[in-house]
Amino acid sequence: MEFELQITDPQSRARTGKITTDHGVIETPIFMPVGTVGSVKGVHFNDLRNDIEAQIILGNTYHLYLRPGLDIIEKAGGLHKFNGWDRPILTDSGGYQVFSLSANRKIKEDGAVFRSHIDGSKHLFTPENVVDTQRIIGADIMMAFDECAPGDAPHDYAKKSMELTHRWLQRGITQFDSTRAKYGYSQTFFPIVQGAGFKDLRTQSAEYIASFGREGNAIGGLSVGEPAEVMYEMTEVVTGILPKDKPRYLMGVGTPVNILESIALGVDMFDCVMPTRNGRNGMLFTSRGIMNMKNQKWKDDFSPVDPEGTSFVDHHYTKAYLRHLFVSKELLAAQIGSLHNLAFYLWLVKEARSHIQAGDFIPWKNQMVKQLSVRL
Amino acid sequence: MEFELQITDPQSRARTGKITTDHGVIETPIFMPVGTVGSVKGVHFNDLRNDIEAQIILGNTYHLYLRPGLDIIEKAGGLHKFNGWDRPILTDSGGYQVFSLSANRKIKEDGAVFRSHIDGSKHLFTPENVVDTQRIIGADIMMAFDECAPGDAPHDYAKKSMELTHRWLQRGITQFDSTRAKYGYSQTFFPIVQGAGFKDLRTQSAEYIASFGREGNAIGGLSVGEPAEVMYEMTEVVTGILPKDKPRYLMGVGTPVNILESIALGVDMFDCVMPTRNGRNGMLFTSRGIMNMKNQKWKDDFSPVDPEGTSFVDHHYTKAYLRHLFVSKELLAAQIGSLHNLAFYLWLVKEARSHIQAGDFIPWKNQMVKQLSVRL
Repeated sequence: MEFELQITDPQSRARTGKITTDHGVIETPIFMPVGTVGSVKGVHFNDLRNDIEAQIILGNTYHLYLRPGLDIIEKAGGLHKFNGWDRPILTDSGGYQVFSLSANRKIKEDGAVFRSHIDGSKHLFTPENVVDTQRIIGADIMMAFDECAPGDAPHDYAKKSMELTHRWLQRGITQFDSTRAKYGYSQTFFPIVQGAGFKDLRTQSAEYIASFGREGNAIGGLSVGEPAEVMYEMTEVVTGILPKDKPRYLMGVGTPVNILESIALGVDMFDCVMPTRNGRNGMLFTSRGIMNMKNQKWKDDFSPVDPEGTSFVDHHYTKAYLRHLFVSKELLAAQIGSLHNLAFYLWLVKEARSHIQAGDFIPWKNQMVKQLSVRL
Repeated sequence: MEFELQITDPQSRARTGKITTDHGVIETPIFMPVGTVGSVKGVHFNDLRNDIEAQIILGNTYHLYLRPGLDIIEKAGGLHKFNGWDRPILTDSGGYQVFSLSANRKIKEDGAVFRSHIDGSKHLFTPENVVDTQRIIGADIMMAFDECAPGDAPHDYAKKSMELTHRWLQRGITQFDSTRAKYGYSQTFFPIVQGAGFKDLRTQSAEYIASFGREGNAIGGLSVGEPAEVMYEMTEVVTGILPKDKPRYLMGVGTPVNILESIALGVDMFDCVMPTRNGRNGMLFTSRGIMNMKNQKWKDDFSPVDPEGTSFVDHHYTKAYLRHLFVSKELLAAQIGSLHNLAFYLWLVKEARSHIQAGDFIPWKNQMVKQLSVRL
């Protein structure tokens, strides 16, 4: 993987860049649609490619490990071959999903023991076997196994958790550096900064992570229930420390506003289930604000879903028709909502990129942040 | 509406034809995907048009009347404007849906009183107001209001029911002929032959329906639980009587085999929820037979979904991946299954048409009927 830092905004830490992988180029800042079990929910791959113009998607190691299972993915020749997506894929490490199982997992020095949400079967993830799993999945970008502490973790818990994540990182790097890619193309490995909502821990963690000089770095443990201000504050601390010449990935973030604010703080990569999950439930993000498509007010609004939208769904369907589909619980409603929101997220980061290039990112961002929060 | 009878197979009653409506041409024999509430479940309209190559779709009067309701459809300027489908639309009369409500409806001379399956509210459908409703929906082809007797109805019940349907037809025709289309394009009105599983009643009903000389005629009350042999027998009786120079529509039929056998009996038009409903549940129809995609046997079959299929889904996705999506209950599974099955149904009738033209329809049909029933 190569990263070329292109333009840095003189008024903020926002920057544009170009990541080159064996599956193609990613222009940053970028949003990565989430393909939990190897499918972006409700979206055909041709639309993901040609309509949404996704450059990279995310797969969840925890989910893929359980279903279809590593034997099937390996037999297929990796996830790209299995799902037919030939652009880059990033996989998380499963740390966040295991953390979310709360009652059904136990964190030990060796790793995390958890029970499957599907059949209750018992499994162990370690920093080493999570590397092996991602080798089999064949992600272009793999993530270190981390413990993701809760947003309101007290300092002593957060510190212990961060230290465990650091020890796990060392083990993960050793495993990664002593193994090889399985399918003839390169894979890279990103470490993850933790430290919950504490500046001292975030500083310590960012310095530790930076010291490895990996090809890219991630910020984890944010957008897990803490106030947005804390998220921005922690992100600012961390991006001030992580190397400028490596891409920075803020995991699991977020709303359109979160993304723009974090771009201003120097983040290059994002992922979140929000566009698809909210889209399936009738919440559409647009450049003019947020629409709840189940709302009575759209019932006879025969204007296009989003006249300024980039997706075919924005122009083919009307608000009244889409509302009717949501009220009638039609499958097509979820499909339109997901496609629209993903196309909007991809438009938003592309637009951010072109405003950084044009030198007017901050005024544009400030204006957009106002518009994006309006309830239409 | 115009119908041009093109080629009639010398070995059977199969024929090709061309229906011309103000929304475009339909080449028969044809299958009409069902768009219950104005959406073909799980399928975007651009795929319906360009991938499936649907020439006409069906809407359900009962469902559209309840949701979004006639006020919204009228404000939109009709169903075509509301859902953005600019090719022909046929609407049923609601007779079949009301009949299916069993406990929640009462058939009287005036019409049928029923309770909504959504909120229990009380409604009355009459032969006249069902015409008015379809005028508002703006279907290119409207259907008469009929009583659809059960497949195992005794002779006296079937006779009374047929006679009621005939009286309702007279009232529907009077209403249709004394009203006008609302949106500047023509609408036509098909009467429906009833008579359950009795040759004498089917003969009587077909003669009565034929006597009106409408632009097209339908056969109702079949594929409602009776054996396939009875369905074919009744269809044969009726197509022997209905005028040759008018299209014949066999309502709610059926499996791929049912469709081929009925084409041989002189039917031109079909609709059925089977391709979408079964597709959503993992049953795929192909030219080599039927696949249950949830079956264990596909778990490591990395060949395309259907190498001979005409849809993009047949070639982009593999059987193993599609099985994984069904097992994981992913939305995309239902989308792929629906698209595949509809594309297959449309391919099947197109292929039937070209074999009628080529003069080898019966040998081709006999071979296909064998293949189509194979469990893969």
